[in-house]
Amino acid sequence: MFESFITGHWFSAPAKAIWSDSATLQAWLDVEAALAHAQAGLGVIPAEVAPVIAAHARAELFDLPHLAKAIAFAQHPLVPVLHRFEELCGEPAAGFIHWGATTQNIFDTASALQMVRTHRLLAGHLDAAIAALAALALEHQATPMAGRTHGQHALPMTLGFKLAGWVDELDRGRRRLAERLASSFPASMGGAIGTFAATGPLGPAVQALMAQQLGLLPADMPLRSSYDRASDYLAALGLLAGTAQKIAQDVVFLQRTEVGEVAEAFHIGKVGSSTMAQKRNPSMALLLVSLARMLRTRTQAALETMVRMDEGDSSATNVADTLLPEIAIIATSVAETLARLAQGLAVNLQAMSRNLAMTRGLIASEAVMMRLTRLMGRHEAHRLLYAAAQRSQSEGVPFIDAIRAQPPFNGGALPDDLLQALDAQAYVGESARLVVDTVARVAPGCVEP
Amino acid sequence: MFESFITGHWFSAPAKAIWSDSATLQAWLDVEAALAHAQAGLGVIPAEVAPVIAAHARAELFDLPHLAKAIAFAQHPLVPVLHRFEELCGEPAAGFIHWGATTQNIFDTASALQMVRTHRLLAGHLDAAIAALAALALEHQATPMAGRTHGQHALPMTLGFKLAGWVDELDRGRRRLAERLASSFPASMGGAIGTFAATGPLGPAVQALMAQQLGLLPADMPLRSSYDRASDYLAALGLLAGTAQKIAQDVVFLQRTEVGEVAEAFHIGKVGSSTMAQKRNPSMALLLVSLARMLRTRTQAALETMVRMDEGDSSATNVADTLLPEIAIIATSVAETLARLAQGLAVNLQAMSRNLAMTRGLIASEAVMMRLTRLMGRHEAHRLLYAAAQRSQSEGVPFIDAIRAQPPFNGGALPDDLLQALDAQAYVGESARLVVDTVARVAPGCVEP
Amino acid sequence: MFESFITGHWFSAPAKAIWSDSATLQAWLDVEAALAHAQAGLGVIPAEVAPVIAAHARAELFDLPHLAKAIAFAQHPLVPVLHRFEELCGEPAAGFIHWGATTQNIFDTASALQMVRTHRLLAGHLDAAIAALAALALEHQATPMAGRTHGQHALPMTLGFKLAGWVDELDRGRRRLAERLASSFPASMGGAIGTFAATGPLGPAVQALMAQQLGLLPADMPLRSSYDRASDYLAALGLLAGTAQKIAQDVVFLQRTEVGEVAEAFHIGKVGSSTMAQKRNPSMALLLVSLARMLRTRTQAALETMVRMDEGDSSATNVADTLLPEIAIIATSVAETLARLAQGLAVNLQAMSRNLAMTRGLIASEAVMMRLTRLMGRHEAHRLLYAAAQRSQSEGVPFIDAIRAQPPFNGGALPDDLLQALDAQAYVGESARLVVDTVARVAPGCVEP
Amino acid sequence: MFESFITGHWFSAPAKAIWSDSATLQAWLDVEAALAHAQAGLGVIPAEVAPVIAAHARAELFDLPHLAKAIAFAQHPLVPVLHRFEELCGEPAAGFIHWGATTQNIFDTASALQMVRTHRLLAGHLDAAIAALAALALEHQATPMAGRTHGQHALPMTLGFKLAGWVDELDRGRRRLAERLASSFPASMGGAIGTFAATGPLGPAVQALMAQQLGLLPADMPLRSSYDRASDYLAALGLLAGTAQKIAQDVVFLQRTEVGEVAEAFHIGKVGSSTMAQKRNPSMALLLVSLARMLRTRTQAALETMVRMDEGDSSATNVADTLLPEIAIIATSVAETLARLAQGLAVNLQAMSRNLAMTRGLIASEAVMMRLTRLMGRHEAHRLLYAAAQRSQSEGVPFIDAIRAQPPFNGGALPDDLLQALDAQAYVGESARLVVDTVARVAPGCVEP
Repeated sequence: MFESFITGHWFSAPAKAIWSDSATLQAWLDVEAALAHAQAGLGVIPAEVAPVIAAHARAELFDLPHLAKAIAFAQHPLVPVLHRFEELCGEPAAGFIHWGATTQNIFDTASALQMVRTHRLLAGHLDAAIAALAALALEHQATPMAGRTHGQHALPMTLGFKLAGWVDELDRGRRRLAERLASSFPASMGGAIGTFAATGPLGPAVQALMAQQLGLLPADMPLRSSYDRASDYLAALGLLAGTAQKIAQDVVFLQRTEVGEVAEAFHIGKVGSSTMAQKRNPSMALLLVSLARMLRTRTQAALETMVRMDEGDSSATNVADTLLPEIAIIATSVAETLARLAQGLAVNLQAMSRNLAMTRGLIASEAVMMRLTRLMGRHEAHRLLYAAAQRSQSEGVPFIDAIRAQPPFNGGALPDDLLQALDAQAYVGESARLVVDTVARVAPGCVEP
Repeated sequence: MFESFITGHWFSAPAKAIWSDSATLQAWLDVEAALAHAQAGLGVIPAEVAPVIAAHARAELFDLPHLAKAIAFAQHPLVPVLHRFEELCGEPAAGFIHWGATTQNIFDTASALQMVRTHRLLAGHLDAAIAALAALALEHQATPMAGRTHGQHALPMTLGFKLAGWVDELDRGRRRLAERLASSFPASMGGAIGTFAATGPLGPAVQALMAQQLGLLPADMPLRSSYDRASDYLAALGLLAGTAQKIAQDVVFLQRTEVGEVAEAFHIGKVGSSTMAQKRNPSMALLLVSLARMLRTRTQAALETMVRMDEGDSSATNVADTLLPEIAIIATSVAETLARLAQGLAVNLQAMSRNLAMTRGLIASEAVMMRLTRLMGRHEAHRLLYAAAQRSQSEGVPFIDAIRAQPPFNGGALPDDLLQALDAQAYVGESARLVVDTVARVAPGCVEP
Repeated sequence: MFESFITGHWFSAPAKAIWSDSATLQAWLDVEAALAHAQAGLGVIPAEVAPVIAAHARAELFDLPHLAKAIAFAQHPLVPVLHRFEELCGEPAAGFIHWGATTQNIFDTASALQMVRTHRLLAGHLDAAIAALAALALEHQATPMAGRTHGQHALPMTLGFKLAGWVDELDRGRRRLAERLASSFPASMGGAIGTFAATGPLGPAVQALMAQQLGLLPADMPLRSSYDRASDYLAALGLLAGTAQKIAQDVVFLQRTEVGEVAEAFHIGKVGSSTMAQKRNPSMALLLVSLARMLRTRTQAALETMVRMDEGDSSATNVADTLLPEIAIIATSVAETLARLAQGLAVNLQAMSRNLAMTRGLIASEAVMMRLTRLMGRHEAHRLLYAAAQRSQSEGVPFIDAIRAQPPFNGGALPDDLLQALDAQAYVGESARLVVDTVARVAPGCVEP
Repeated sequence: MFESFITGHWFSAPAKAIWSDSATLQAWLDVEAALAHAQAGLGVIPAEVAPVIAAHARAELFDLPHLAKAIAFAQHPLVPVLHRFEELCGEPAAGFIHWGATTQNIFDTASALQMVRTHRLLAGHLDAAIAALAALALEHQATPMAGRTHGQHALPMTLGFKLAGWVDELDRGRRRLAERLASSFPASMGGAIGTFAATGPLGPAVQALMAQQLGLLPADMPLRSSYDRASDYLAALGLLAGTAQKIAQDVVFLQRTEVGEVAEAFHIGKVGSSTMAQKRNPSMALLLVSLARMLRTRTQAALETMVRMDEGDSSATNVADTLLPEIAIIATSVAETLARLAQGLAVNLQAMSRNLAMTRGLIASEAVMMRLTRLMGRHEAHRLLYAAAQRSQSEGVPFIDAIRAQPPFNGGALPDDLLQALDAQAYVGESARLVVDTVARVAPGCVEP
């Protein structure tokens, strides 16, 4: 999927680079080098071997296809790598490679490094998406449009209000990820089951020093059977997927032929169909829905791997270890696609205005209701407007006429403020103020002083 | 949820009755009675005890609240029931109750009985839904409307064609369920692990006779650790949920304020909002989406319980056993709601016609394409129409004018058949024929001779 | 399921009480009363009506079966309640009930109140579970047992170390929930789509005052279409489910007939089988696995409802609103069952010792490896031990003899420290220290000064 | 994942070949050629162009990296392929390529071809797995072992009985897939929305003829928005995943250090750990669990794409189209790994015998129960044995002594048949007969005449 000629372009190239075979191998080697450095520093291994190990910890010195075959034979993913690494380093350094470590220590710490790099990419795209949407929200803080609930026009609002809602939710998503990154991806070097048995009393200090060098936190209890830390970040990615899908589906709807209020960027040469030349599909938004689904499916599957047998369980870690790169790449692609979608959104003011007027006042029935309630109580006001509104829809009578026909008006004149209440463009509440407040809170750079 | 004052009315009352506490207890007792009858018939237990057991196998003789307490103490769901049953029957019959059976045998066979009853209800609702949609499809086999792909107008079709697609998919769902019912819910009486150890060589014959009496098939290998049979039916329910949700979401869209092509039934007194008096929400369709989601979530969870430890595993069967009643009730409610939705659908011909004309010909671009292809090849035809269609959309030029402006026409006259091709109402292909064929195949009663 | 005579006792009675029909109705009324109070305080409604509204906001004044029927007719869950509430209050107060609010505001804020109450219950059970496990971990900080990976003996560890791992993960789960509670369940009073249209410029202040009275935070953007806040807490419950299931599955394994290292509490009268009198099933642990699965299924389904159409979407909120009570009850039951399981765990020291000795030294092969590595390098040491260990397993030769047979020993004497290394009881690494550190960090009350 | 140097060897190479970029492109071209052939045969396009189209329908004539770039620019997966295909064919054939087809017709029909090929591979592996297990079941039809429920010894059975249960469930899985293949993957050529608009009245005949040539069934209603057909097969794969995971988890348990009753194949050179030289992990079984989880996650996600907007919805088809190759490859790998696991299973008779004797008779308590029931009724028998069994476990008294101590025996002699009943090896019920019956039914070739 990531490399297919059909779908390869859906996915973030830099994210794919972070998780390529050679980058993964390099991350393993970086961890081995940092481990040797920490152990040398604390006197666990001879001081002189650490630089030798570090000097040969370079992925380009390894032959990946050859390793792949050796791994398939040994049915072990790291031992063949270590053999080659030992050859490269020679004795005595070879003897101190991977000292006291277990395979999963290396893998978990290496993938922590890769996740930190992925997070930076992803956060950059999220920032860009938020900035673009915040700017558009400010611009359209007072642009009226129909608010919809349950698939029907409900109340007027402004486009800015809608966009500020997206911005606010995206900002929460962004903060969750940033807050949880470090605690979710610690460095682990507790040995086969986390007791530091092979490294002894200095084990925790080695782990802490190694973690520091790699820019990670050390794991208090470095257990392979605990996956709740990583899961916390992955669950936050799952929430981000939900937010992205919600936004994308809104765009798909707003671009519907009958609605036409916004449209994603289009360029001549973009093709919607092999036979229907007119098609301008919201293909970026639809792709974003797809990517969000792919992401959520995988984050949920990763969370299920929290349930692990005993002190280690490859039936779970196999799944988590193969899902993590996919999740990282897809999540980055979600954020990247969202940013591109946000940056390219085109607004059709005319369509918004046309749609808002479509029900000839019904969309502002609540405004009338609030005023009538002061006159006759909530219950009676609802009864009157219900009757009028249903008649308006069933018989096509303008709403105002249907109201006027009801008692106590009985065809007489309506109070002025009732007429004003029916002005849909005006009944947008605190939309603009909420936009300004939200943008000031989450994207202060967008608000001019 | 099923009994809450807020949501209780969402769910099929007859389905709830099939799975009530007393009906469940009765189903257990029915199985115990059938077992005794079969064992007496084959000489495994004394002939005279079977009628005694059958006579006391009546749920109303049991005190449910008292049983609930005893079950909580024993932490066993059946032993307290058996104690009371023994008291009711007295010796010697008491000694031959539940002869050679294990708890899960009784539960599985009883729930098979309940599933067969549920299926009848559900199938009746599905038949009703299909009949209503098939009749509407026939009626509107030639009513043109916009076909949409990727959220954009694509090609014209007829309403009947769309409905026939639903009917066809529902019919496949109906057939799947009917075909799989019997094999999915067999009678099991193999004892604690399925070896017939307690009943000996006559065990399989007892199981077969008991199954026959209950109208079920016997299980070849009556294993408690195999759940693939039931799962097969549940998976088919999951597919039905997908179909129902798809249909319901289509209805929600078609009833959108901007689209308005169909509407679900409405009655005065139905309230859409506590403050927005005008609201006519597609609440039945939205509820159907909700029910379908509830169903799918639960069928997937049930399927996960296929993975069971050893010869029996209550960590899985606890989940399956509590999910099955919920699945049965929700599935019936999905079918019931679907039938009501189908029976109440109102069609707005004017809106269909208006929407179809909305793009002033673009929706028929493929028809033009097919004709131009004969003149100039597919590639060149796509190029010409792509240029014209994009200009039409970007600049608001009528499609026909944009075509005429392109070479080779360069503003000259267009061939007659090109003009005909732009008639959206006509370009509905084999819509009507497919409607008639489909209805004749799946709901022959709807087609007049 | 929650009320069934078979399974009702699985679920926390106090949690069921928080979410009963009458408690839910009361929570709605509490929100209506707090709203009136806040609006009166800010001059939005007459000061004198708020006490009248508050005085009648008592669930026992409402007839639930009657409401259920009216709700089914209106197909609206709140309007019939409001009608009755208006009757109770009389004019003029009736006219100011629910002023400017929308149904979902009341529901969301009420369920926030209910979730806060649920959290207190749940957190109490988690505290109890952690305290019990921490005390047991301290007691057994030096009790050796086999550590296992991939279903095979790996390294020795102590029972305390294993338990401290559970404690550490549970503590992280507890902290996540506590940290996210307030932000996940804010008070919302933004009206039909969140613009405060019906209450005007004072709307946000009303919301803030109401929130304060209810002990909640106000929602910055009170959107019905944003569910990421609640989802954040629900996702953390999903992680807790994973932790609980992991622990429970470990207990089930450790109680296996062949292993027998721990056992859950047993009482005479607890029945394992209707026919197998000997059965002492780990039924509490198995139930905990079941409950954890039920919880995770539902939290995932709730997270999927984040994707909502437009400004409000009952096809999603219907699902979330019915799942929330189930999630709350099941999550509390998970924590309660976990606490009971933890408090009743019995340890079989003899079995631990027997199992640890089962491989006659192989389990300590890493200890030998570390020593041999110093002699001959990692690669050579692995080769020697691999050959010896495989021969030991294939031919049943004691490990020490198989080592001695390898070059460079060739049957000669082994260094003393190699013999010491084979003492499985001693090779538990930093187990005890990690126990003490962990317990001091997460349950300081358990550590004696 | 499929090509990574770490995990590439987990996956079936022939399945990967079926779904490689070039094989996928070839499948598209095969469909285009078959379409042209059918249209020429029916006079829809000139007879002479079909051979030209067929002659150039060869993937090796296309430059995949170049296509990948063009696809990314056009954001359309097929149009660039068609351009190149037109160049290759030249006029007039170029003009008749893809006549009346829509992209999704080509994709769906091509993937149907690929699924048929995948099915053959997968079914071959399933056959091999069933044959190996059936042979082993026959061999061990009378080998006694402990049957376990809820993690505890329950009743004796034979190894053959357990294996026959696997065989029976696998056979049902195999039959489901075979029965549903053809109806799940039809050929579709209905055009953009399935109305045959572009091809007119001959459309259905063209579709039928094309289907015949490709060895597929034609789709009655060729709708892109109906995914229930493919879903039916995918759901059956989901059930197969459940079966495979169940079997694999059983193997992992049976190979547990404390149990040791079976072991998967081992070869010198297979490494279990980088530091624990003794490790013989059930890595194939654990991998099978992982693969089964990967498969189930993806089939569930594919089923969710049944819910599609209108007449076509790339937000769903994008997901389904990228999942299908992954599902196909993983499913084949599940079957392949299962076959290898089955073929390499080693049985440890001594361990089975030792474990069966472990409870010194308790495992046969049901046998005693059946005999005592004849003497004193079920209720009394259960009471007596419950007391004796619990005392046996709590105090370590042999079961037989504990029975003898109970009234009415009060320390006196026990009937002979009670003593016989305690012989665990004998109480295996109809195990052997069920093995023979099952194997005769599902793998008749394994049974000697």
